[in-house]
Amino acid sequence: MELERFIRDIPDFPKQGIVFKDITPLLADPRALSAAADQLAQPYASLGVAAVAGIESRGFIFGSLVAQRLGAGFVPIRKPGKLPYKTLRESYQLEYGTDAVEIHCDAVAKGQKVLLVDDLLATGGTMSAACKLVRKLGGQIVGVAFVIELCFLHGRDKLKDYPLHVLVQVASE
Amino acid sequence: MELERFIRDIPDFPKQGIVFKDITPLLADPRALSAAADQLAQPYASLGVAAVAGIESRGFIFGSLVAQRLGAGFVPIRKPGKLPYKTLRESYQLEYGTDAVEIHCDAVAKGQKVLLVDDLLATGGTMSAACKLVRKLGGQIVGVAFVIELCFLHGRDKLKDYPLHVLVQVASE
Repeated sequence: MELERFIRDIPDFPKQGIVFKDITPLLADPRALSAAADQLAQPYASLGVAAVAGIESRGFIFGSLVAQRLGAGFVPIRKPGKLPYKTLRESYQLEYGTDAVEIHCDAVAKGQKVLLVDDLLATGGTMSAACKLVRKLGGQIVGVAFVIELCFLHGRDKLKDYPLHVLVQVASE
Repeated sequence: MELERFIRDIPDFPKQGIVFKDITPLLADPRALSAAADQLAQPYASLGVAAVAGIESRGFIFGSLVAQRLGAGFVPIRKPGKLPYKTLRESYQLEYGTDAVEIHCDAVAKGQKVLLVDDLLATGGTMSAACKLVRKLGGQIVGVAFVIELCFLHGRDKLKDYPLHVLVQVASE
């Protein structure tokens, strides 16, 4: 299924000059959503993935659907202060300032195979930090998967250590 | 499946004196997560649900899994400023101050049957506001479903207009 036609351009969001890729039409279509989850999961079907980590918030949607398709557990990776149990934190650089993500200390066991999922690969900062968290816990990253890649932001350069899987590539702004 | 044993008590989170119900052990167990989604969806299986709305962020996990089980689309209901297209907003009272949720104007069509899903029923303020958004768009609410109900907060009093479905009831603090 051609997923591109379920992604809507929203000019000037979240700020002037940015064209936001809106996936809500894809979410609203049961067959498109199912196809996206199938396609995200497909390369990992026979790899023995134990856990799928999804990044807050839209990564929760695709991450949980992919986890169920792979018979794996779901691990939420969240903004600081949201996870209630003991956490590890990893900071990363933004254009101005820094941000951070957290994972529960018991979310991944040593040696477990982990797939990380998010909706959008932009600069790659968040996913790169998420991967560091999984590795600190001893997880073995079998891949990072995204619905959309904004190729002109070169986010994949930050993720060279991991097999990358993308459904829809956006070449230029 | 007994889901209670996959829910962990975290004392003093997010603040002193509160016992937080942590669902991450449930998410981490593929069979428990699958059972929770099955049980959430079960009462609505033959009702022709067109869309399942999930509330940011943990509601995204269960909402999308339930949507797929019902062959329905998924509609995200989010905190203000997160949805990129034209939105409706509904404010609601907190203990101190107010908060609000938003929905895309085109997320629900007039007369569509909508199920709303979240992980936790506490005071019911967020879900009540989410229901108002769906009704403003002309959606017909077939139910509101939660994994956990904190009965001592009487949140169901705010949701009397809708059929309520809960998997795990917590009777006292």
